[in-house]
Amino acid sequence: MNITVHHLEFSRSTRALFLLEELGVDYEIVRHKRNKGGRAIDDDLRKVHPLGRAPMVVVDGKPLVESAAILEWFVEDSGIEGASRLGPPSRELKQDYRFFLHYGEGSVMPVLIIRLLMERVKTAPLPFFIKPIARRVADGVQDQYSNGEIARHFDFLDDWLSTREWLLGDTFTAADIHIMYPVAAAKKLHVEDRPHVRAWWDRLAARPAFKRAIEKGGPLTPPR
Amino acid sequence: MNITVHHLEFSRSTRALFLLEELGVDYEIVRHKRNKGGRAIDDDLRKVHPLGRAPMVVVDGKPLVESAAILEWFVEDSGIEGASRLGPPSRELKQDYRFFLHYGEGSVMPVLIIRLLMERVKTAPLPFFIKPIARRVADGVQDQYSNGEIARHFDFLDDWLSTREWLLGDTFTAADIHIMYPVAAAKKLHVEDRPHVRAWWDRLAARPAFKRAIEKGGPLTPPR
Repeated sequence: MNITVHHLEFSRSTRALFLLEELGVDYEIVRHKRNKGGRAIDDDLRKVHPLGRAPMVVVDGKPLVESAAILEWFVEDSGIEGASRLGPPSRELKQDYRFFLHYGEGSVMPVLIIRLLMERVKTAPLPFFIKPIARRVADGVQDQYSNGEIARHFDFLDDWLSTREWLLGDTFTAADIHIMYPVAAAKKLHVEDRPHVRAWWDRLAARPAFKRAIEKGGPLTPPR
Repeated sequence: MNITVHHLEFSRSTRALFLLEELGVDYEIVRHKRNKGGRAIDDDLRKVHPLGRAPMVVVDGKPLVESAAILEWFVEDSGIEGASRLGPPSRELKQDYRFFLHYGEGSVMPVLIIRLLMERVKTAPLPFFIKPIARRVADGVQDQYSNGEIARHFDFLDDWLSTREWLLGDTFTAADIHIMYPVAAAKKLHVEDRPHVRAWWDRLAARPAFKRAIEKGGPLTPPR
């Protein structure tokens, strides 16, 4: 099996690296940079798939896109030995597994993105007479649409993890790999005061496969 | 099987209604309203699940959340007769099916939400000396983060649907039910000039199950 990961720096594609390191299979990395505005420089990516997005993993010439769908393919359909151990540990936990694979990008990331964009508005180089108003607008959007939601997601995760070692209990799964990214994107702000999320993060970051993924792909988020 | 749909007006929960109408099973609807700011009034919902979100479908006392995970459960695990016909029509199409079930909320909705929030900023009741600056900020965010992305998603969908009756080919599936919502949320703006998306929408809206879902749940988006 010929596996190529299109890896965008500081991005969701670290999920694919983490997964492949857990599986212990060989793969190649094609590296993509972000531009100054934080966007992917995606012309190269578009040659491989019209959406031009990372992560993209090409397996024997076939591009796979959407990070959760990539994880699902490897776990369920790749035929790689031992891959299914990263899937739901039991039939009873299958729905929780599915939930987390949708929840990460479908619910948590959108509100984190809104917050991030509004932070960029607040720190953008704007004329002095515009800056305080831009800040007021951005604060208003955050107050109304992101701050409360983000807090609620992290309260939910903290409560969930208060009785579990990993998201699905005793077994580390692709759900943990998936939720790694929103937790990293939320950074200290929402993690430090959630002891169970923090403890889960420390366990996750201690995994040899995680360390190798970061060595090969670089940090999950840009340096401040 | 006892099925209750917590249906929030003008929302993703129309997906659950559409699915259940396609399956032809009995279910109850508990209706939830949005407040003036467009947010769910979610205290009731939180009594059923800590995230307090719609759609939520309670099956024999067990709450299911995240709309794609709800669709997947009914198609794959409910045991309802004929439900699997809404799943991937073949093994070859399984990854495309998975892709669309993640793509709808993971990629298309976030940029539509950014656009929507910025539209709200532009039309918010603000003092006259603030309004033009708020508008400038909102336009800037849309230019940089949502307009181009939205256009690209709809170009991709239009191209995809140029050779297919439904998203997975000849067979209507839960992928169509899922993508219904972002296409409705984009409204005329991005649909009118994409003939293949428009034709797909017309086919979808002509389905008796869709019509019954709208009759029972009301329109997908609020009246302007």
